[in-house]
Amino acid sequence: MLKQTSSEYRGYRTAGIRLRDEMLPQLGQLYGSRTRAMLPAVHAFDKAHTVMLVEEGLLPRDVGAAILRQLRALESEGVVEVRAKVGGGLHSGEHYLIRKLGEDIGGRFHIARSSGDLSSVAINTLQREKLLAVLRGLNRMRRTLIDLSRLHTDTILPGYSFGQHAQPMTLAHLWLSWAASLARDFERVHGAYGRINTSPAGAAIMVGSNFLVNRTRTAELLGFDAVHENCADAILELNADDSLEVPSVIAVLYHSLAKWGDDIIQWSTSEYHFVDVPDRYCNTSSIMMQKKNVIGPAEVKGASAEALGCFVSAYHALKGTTGLPITERYYALETLWRVADNCVRDLGWFCDLLPALIIRKEHMREQAWLHWATGTDLAGALVSKRNLPWRTAHQIVGILVRLCEERGLTPADVTPALLDEASMLYHEQPASLSQADIREALDPGAFIAARTLRGGPAPAESMRQADLFLQRTLDDEKIVADIDGRLAESARTLEAAIDAIIA
Amino acid sequence: MLKQTSSEYRGYRTAGIRLRDEMLPQLGQLYGSRTRAMLPAVHAFDKAHTVMLVEEGLLPRDVGAAILRQLRALESEGVVEVRAKVGGGLHSGEHYLIRKLGEDIGGRFHIARSSGDLSSVAINTLQREKLLAVLRGLNRMRRTLIDLSRLHTDTILPGYSFGQHAQPMTLAHLWLSWAASLARDFERVHGAYGRINTSPAGAAIMVGSNFLVNRTRTAELLGFDAVHENCADAILELNADDSLEVPSVIAVLYHSLAKWGDDIIQWSTSEYHFVDVPDRYCNTSSIMMQKKNVIGPAEVKGASAEALGCFVSAYHALKGTTGLPITERYYALETLWRVADNCVRDLGWFCDLLPALIIRKEHMREQAWLHWATGTDLAGALVSKRNLPWRTAHQIVGILVRLCEERGLTPADVTPALLDEASMLYHEQPASLSQADIREALDPGAFIAARTLRGGPAPAESMRQADLFLQRTLDDEKIVADIDGRLAESARTLEAAIDAIIA
Amino acid sequence: MLKQTSSEYRGYRTAGIRLRDEMLPQLGQLYGSRTRAMLPAVHAFDKAHTVMLVEEGLLPRDVGAAILRQLRALESEGVVEVRAKVGGGLHSGEHYLIRKLGEDIGGRFHIARSSGDLSSVAINTLQREKLLAVLRGLNRMRRTLIDLSRLHTDTILPGYSFGQHAQPMTLAHLWLSWAASLARDFERVHGAYGRINTSPAGAAIMVGSNFLVNRTRTAELLGFDAVHENCADAILELNADDSLEVPSVIAVLYHSLAKWGDDIIQWSTSEYHFVDVPDRYCNTSSIMMQKKNVIGPAEVKGASAEALGCFVSAYHALKGTTGLPITERYYALETLWRVADNCVRDLGWFCDLLPALIIRKEHMREQAWLHWATGTDLAGALVSKRNLPWRTAHQIVGILVRLCEERGLTPADVTPALLDEASMLYHEQPASLSQADIREALDPGAFIAARTLRGGPAPAESMRQADLFLQRTLDDEKIVADIDGRLAESARTLEAAIDAIIA
Amino acid sequence: MLKQTSSEYRGYRTAGIRLRDEMLPQLGQLYGSRTRAMLPAVHAFDKAHTVMLVEEGLLPRDVGAAILRQLRALESEGVVEVRAKVGGGLHSGEHYLIRKLGEDIGGRFHIARSSGDLSSVAINTLQREKLLAVLRGLNRMRRTLIDLSRLHTDTILPGYSFGQHAQPMTLAHLWLSWAASLARDFERVHGAYGRINTSPAGAAIMVGSNFLVNRTRTAELLGFDAVHENCADAILELNADDSLEVPSVIAVLYHSLAKWGDDIIQWSTSEYHFVDVPDRYCNTSSIMMQKKNVIGPAEVKGASAEALGCFVSAYHALKGTTGLPITERYYALETLWRVADNCVRDLGWFCDLLPALIIRKEHMREQAWLHWATGTDLAGALVSKRNLPWRTAHQIVGILVRLCEERGLTPADVTPALLDEASMLYHEQPASLSQADIREALDPGAFIAARTLRGGPAPAESMRQADLFLQRTLDDEKIVADIDGRLAESARTLEAAIDAIIA
Repeated sequence: MLKQTSSEYRGYRTAGIRLRDEMLPQLGQLYGSRTRAMLPAVHAFDKAHTVMLVEEGLLPRDVGAAILRQLRALESEGVVEVRAKVGGGLHSGEHYLIRKLGEDIGGRFHIARSSGDLSSVAINTLQREKLLAVLRGLNRMRRTLIDLSRLHTDTILPGYSFGQHAQPMTLAHLWLSWAASLARDFERVHGAYGRINTSPAGAAIMVGSNFLVNRTRTAELLGFDAVHENCADAILELNADDSLEVPSVIAVLYHSLAKWGDDIIQWSTSEYHFVDVPDRYCNTSSIMMQKKNVIGPAEVKGASAEALGCFVSAYHALKGTTGLPITERYYALETLWRVADNCVRDLGWFCDLLPALIIRKEHMREQAWLHWATGTDLAGALVSKRNLPWRTAHQIVGILVRLCEERGLTPADVTPALLDEASMLYHEQPASLSQADIREALDPGAFIAARTLRGGPAPAESMRQADLFLQRTLDDEKIVADIDGRLAESARTLEAAIDAIIA
Repeated sequence: MLKQTSSEYRGYRTAGIRLRDEMLPQLGQLYGSRTRAMLPAVHAFDKAHTVMLVEEGLLPRDVGAAILRQLRALESEGVVEVRAKVGGGLHSGEHYLIRKLGEDIGGRFHIARSSGDLSSVAINTLQREKLLAVLRGLNRMRRTLIDLSRLHTDTILPGYSFGQHAQPMTLAHLWLSWAASLARDFERVHGAYGRINTSPAGAAIMVGSNFLVNRTRTAELLGFDAVHENCADAILELNADDSLEVPSVIAVLYHSLAKWGDDIIQWSTSEYHFVDVPDRYCNTSSIMMQKKNVIGPAEVKGASAEALGCFVSAYHALKGTTGLPITERYYALETLWRVADNCVRDLGWFCDLLPALIIRKEHMREQAWLHWATGTDLAGALVSKRNLPWRTAHQIVGILVRLCEERGLTPADVTPALLDEASMLYHEQPASLSQADIREALDPGAFIAARTLRGGPAPAESMRQADLFLQRTLDDEKIVADIDGRLAESARTLEAAIDAIIA
Repeated sequence: MLKQTSSEYRGYRTAGIRLRDEMLPQLGQLYGSRTRAMLPAVHAFDKAHTVMLVEEGLLPRDVGAAILRQLRALESEGVVEVRAKVGGGLHSGEHYLIRKLGEDIGGRFHIARSSGDLSSVAINTLQREKLLAVLRGLNRMRRTLIDLSRLHTDTILPGYSFGQHAQPMTLAHLWLSWAASLARDFERVHGAYGRINTSPAGAAIMVGSNFLVNRTRTAELLGFDAVHENCADAILELNADDSLEVPSVIAVLYHSLAKWGDDIIQWSTSEYHFVDVPDRYCNTSSIMMQKKNVIGPAEVKGASAEALGCFVSAYHALKGTTGLPITERYYALETLWRVADNCVRDLGWFCDLLPALIIRKEHMREQAWLHWATGTDLAGALVSKRNLPWRTAHQIVGILVRLCEERGLTPADVTPALLDEASMLYHEQPASLSQADIREALDPGAFIAARTLRGGPAPAESMRQADLFLQRTLDDEKIVADIDGRLAESARTLEAAIDAIIA
Repeated sequence: MLKQTSSEYRGYRTAGIRLRDEMLPQLGQLYGSRTRAMLPAVHAFDKAHTVMLVEEGLLPRDVGAAILRQLRALESEGVVEVRAKVGGGLHSGEHYLIRKLGEDIGGRFHIARSSGDLSSVAINTLQREKLLAVLRGLNRMRRTLIDLSRLHTDTILPGYSFGQHAQPMTLAHLWLSWAASLARDFERVHGAYGRINTSPAGAAIMVGSNFLVNRTRTAELLGFDAVHENCADAILELNADDSLEVPSVIAVLYHSLAKWGDDIIQWSTSEYHFVDVPDRYCNTSSIMMQKKNVIGPAEVKGASAEALGCFVSAYHALKGTTGLPITERYYALETLWRVADNCVRDLGWFCDLLPALIIRKEHMREQAWLHWATGTDLAGALVSKRNLPWRTAHQIVGILVRLCEERGLTPADVTPALLDEASMLYHEQPASLSQADIREALDPGAFIAARTLRGGPAPAESMRQADLFLQRTLDDEKIVADIDGRLAESARTLEAAIDAIIA
């Protein structure tokens, strides 16, 4: 008799049934280790599927009740541990039930589903959890940036382009731009969330079953917002776009986080020294005792590289004809879980690190004009006060900068005579700007104050943006709270449905 | 005098102004060639910026009118050709105007903007055009799939997983799953569209200008749906998330297109021979005259590889501190334009190719049960007719398949006795299913017909999905039509505003 | 007193020395977990460095002896376990020694090196081990292929290009081509081995030390073949080319392995059915009991995707100015160790799997002419027997194939009349080939037998290649044996030097 | 009659032969544009193949002579232009010959080869040219670096790790490390060269032909160093490892070039200001006239991103079963040619740019101790003069640095008393170092001078490395010269063989 002894049940893939030989143990171990993270989601699906089967009359109520009671017993022993012990990965529920209740009971509950919807439900559920955690982290970081910005509307520093001093900006202006970027990340991640929180349950392996399950009900019990309308589309083995969108939105977000990590490291160098980073994010060297290495943000940068690699691995692993790459995707998925967890970690680090930065405000401000970052407004003064064409004014000040560079002079050394010299060189007419006009034009504080245009760095405009971005963050916090509410509600519904059956 | 002769104006970066030496000609050529695709967008910005300057009193009306008249003259000569000839890339408008009107006029219109918003406006506009074309292509392909699906609800073929026959499905079911996937692509691309169609105009280089431009007006004249609320965020040099989202959504879409290209190639092999591909997508060999190589879909697959490379290049090129990587991004952008154009090409090819496929319906259907794809329903019959647990039934049929394999039998050869033999081997009880039950259970037509569940392949259910997906496509076509309308309206507004000034 | 109690020594980065606060525990845990794999290599370096210090008089002999005795004691307790327990990662030796011997002894042995050469030595050593294992796996697989090829010089199957039947080949011919490719992989991996087996020891952190160590001696004791001639070049933080070459050569190798995995999966489909894969590499389905999913080769394909992702992550993580990305690289390294181990696993699987494949020789041979794969030689016969130009002959047979396709005829149905018909259509002259000539030209056995050219698939030529490739494999096995010998010798030298000091 | 009029010959793939319909014109255009770069190599193969056919008696001498004369005539008209005009891509030779000589002559020379060896020969030849140019560029840059290093053995600057000041080094030391890295690049690129300069000619499409060509002779005439011993291995459609190795070695090289580009940009910032970059590599801004943007090195960085994308595209494009991806690879190849050309461009730029950098030596040296980069040697002095354990000395100086930081003191302010204070805090014992000892220990000049160890930055040791690295460069220049000699010789042999036939 090929039927196994129930108490030692090892699953449906044993020698002598369909195949003659046992599987390489190594392959089984791989499967076990990579499905471990999915076990809680599989457990929930096991419960919801059983409830639905009973409600639809596809499973006798007493059989369903026995199964559900046993699954509750499993919970009390620890879902992941017990399931990992009985083996079977996605099918660990069946292993457990057959061992406890025998094949005649435990062998009945897998009807009308397959490994296909099991893995799809589990992966979607895990993606859901990860994306939700990222959404929460995003909102927290947006809040942090907005709050900090209000404190730094007059913290002036040079802007940079091509690595060179561009025009002055403020820390508020810069951090508000980060918040604006994170608002788009919220949209992207939330968009992806909406697309993955759709139920594949009951799609079995691409065509569903002739045991006519109620897919709407299972979806409701598992907290999915919708049901995949086509069973082939539902199964990740077929349409993999979601499996690529999730790593892609995280990778895009990580690109920004890494950039900002790079900024903080740069600001903390001896050369820039705009900030001091809290010691807890730093280590030192075993021989260079002076070192204060800013490693927290460096971790963020490394994690970003892994996020990129994850997307590439997923893209490559999933290449092939429809339904061909299945095992392959796990090589990308295991990385994805790690990348997503790192992302939540790093969003949290920014929330802790940014407010703890010691800002060297005086030094920043000095730098904001010392290398001619305010030169644009000197040209502007020639336009507004002397009615020069912009390009003429621009060229004159360009010559002025070159003359100063050649003579070792700084912006503080510019005199009307020097400006006239440059102007004469350009078009044989003096510039005729007063010393006061020159000084005012080159002052970084005046520079910032004058930029009251929409989107500009003038303090009041920064406060307007802070208010606006806060409102948007509040709206997005509401979105997350609503999701949390719906998920909690579906969990209660599931347990109540179980109670009703086993009562 | 360092001022150039207007008629030979070569731009603001010449030897003797800020820098002593001329730039390497090679660097100028690179800049010229990579900004060429941006010239039409730059031209529109030149016009809108001038209109806004005049309206806001930042440029005398007569100066503005002279400039706008000249820009219209330029149009009649050919925007790209003339601008490429005068040189200057993003600043070709200034080159042209100074050459034609002298620096005293032509040198005035660059006020209050910079290369930063010029390139950002141009890149956003190009991305807008590319994404719009992709959206149109997506809708056409969805229509094509939905229309074809209605014709193939009874075209049965094996489903595949792991490359092996899974359960039967229909071509309608499969193609509807493609349409479902493309609907998500529409959402993704449209999401990206919404994020990039926001105006950076007036943000200059991260902080705007103290010449207080009306950014809302410029945005309106250029057809942007919104204004970047923070000038640092507006400039692509800073926040690059959009520059990554655009290639990422195209890459994700391309992954599906490549998979379907792979499917078509596989279906056309001697081994599968499910379809004949129209000759126009095929070549042959210079020595193997029998060859009919399906190269159209292979192009799609190759283009997908470039789409992946494009995202990776962009991600890597843009790495670095805020504002550092600027020149670098062009290496990814030039590939992006090509990838986007290929994507539109390939969506079009599918619309032409799919209806022209010759479907070998009989052969497909025969394959759909010949290798046991319907075996699941034989186990199902043991459950429904003999009340066996699913797992018991599954194992019995598994043994049956092995026995048949060992004895060279096919599904058509299964008898009640053979099934009993398998059942006895499993649990020492016969299966006791009649020949008619066995035959019915294994019939692929019956298999499909029975799957009437939501999302299943039963013909009526496929028709329901087709109706639903068509409605969604119609909604999305409406979205694109509205966009087209808004863009046309803004173009008219711009020309009318010019008319008003030059009148 | 800030000096720590030796017995609880926690390392040099504690609050109150250089930095005021303790480091985030999370950062310390990351460091501990990612240096764990390096501990055996660090241990060897600790021993070799101490020996060299004593020999050079940089450490008193009694101090050195005490340290070396303690390091041997550590070994008896388990290098990885004890070091992981005392913490400190690369500096776990110092932790352990200070705890056991006090700072006055244990604090002396880190002189003249730094974390820089510690990590570089450890990473190079790990890379060395991984690459050596890959080299061994490559040689075993080459042997396997060559041995198998000798058995399959008359196992004829269709060649494929564009997925379509090209010309016939033999399994020997194909597998010999795999062996030829693996020979290049050996060269590449061996080239990389040569470049990484160079000693950074003593380079400290880019400039070495003013305690004048004997770098040649340390290199010898650690089994390195050479010494980095420039200390800046020696440190991986600076020149990262080796850190990219190692993942790149593994990724390139993996591309081939994945391709061959894909081949085996394809050959095992119902459509091709060229081989049966041993059951131990297969699983089945929880509802589709007929499934025999070939998952072993699918694992290879997935691992290849991770190999690609690993290279991309490394490339991206290491981007930045010289010396900037250090922490970042660990995100790629942890993946690299896994990828390399998978590679060894997968080379081993091929050695086990290929000889166990059941080859369906008859079916393969039938396919090798059924879809016109031998058509080329029919054109060839027109050239050699009728003196037609190749192109003329090629077009005539092209027409013939089309006619047969239109009329449902196979190659077996070709008659002289049919060929004449095609010939007449082409150039109004008959082909005038006899039935025997036609039959002979289309026979796959004759096709193979005639290809005796260098590199061709004729059996004797395959045997020549097998002999040649075996000789090359023997040469490469000698290379690996020599490496093994040198490494064993250096390990003995190190222990003997320790014996001499502690004696 | 389906035979075409010779004078308008359009190739073998026309409607009515094997296939009923013409191919999409778009597909033909793609093929034409992507084979254009291959035409010179194809032309050489056409000549060599014809010579070999005649020599082996596979083509009548008079036919061969007519063909060779015509191919020489083609040369006088311009190989690329004429071939592009007659169309046919790889088969443009046949098009041209049939048009000129009729099918009876021109239709004879394609015997015993196929598109497979045509494309493989052409791609290998192009790769050969590109790799050779890279090898030359590498040697030039190594020379440049070695020569410059000799001038900068006493140009002291801080080393960096984690972006923070590490220990001082010299520019000579750093640039010699670059040269050391490029020497490995030479090995890698040369290794790849050796593997691709192997002849596929005569392998046709994986199995060669039954017209028994002399593959050795063709290889000799085309300058290949060896013949692929297995015809399946010879054809790039099958074994793609070479197609991945070539982009991988260029990508690895580009990683270094980009890093050094980043260094130069950083050194040129206002914050570092170690160098002034020649103006010809810089542009300025249209509104920020002070800007001197270092764009040449930024191009290098961008090109590196494309090199990475190229490898990823190639890896992905070539995925699939043996012989499946063929068309696909062109998407990676077109990028490869561009990447390789950029690489040669950028190696050249470094050779021009580096000697033209203005080195701000005084400033560099001041930075080399101002932020405690020499602190290690103060700890070293405590070890050598006070016999403290290294770790004890390290911690004391760590405390010293912290105290100075807290009190706003610099290394120049360190007194024996201050050091004693730190020492007392650590272990309640004074350090007792004299002011002179402290000053000497912290001096960057003394720091460098003391590092005479092998690989160290002491001037004499740098000169030793320069001599050694120059010798290695000379050896590698010899390798390139030998290759050039062999290629020139084979070209002469080919022309002489043609002369002999047409004489």
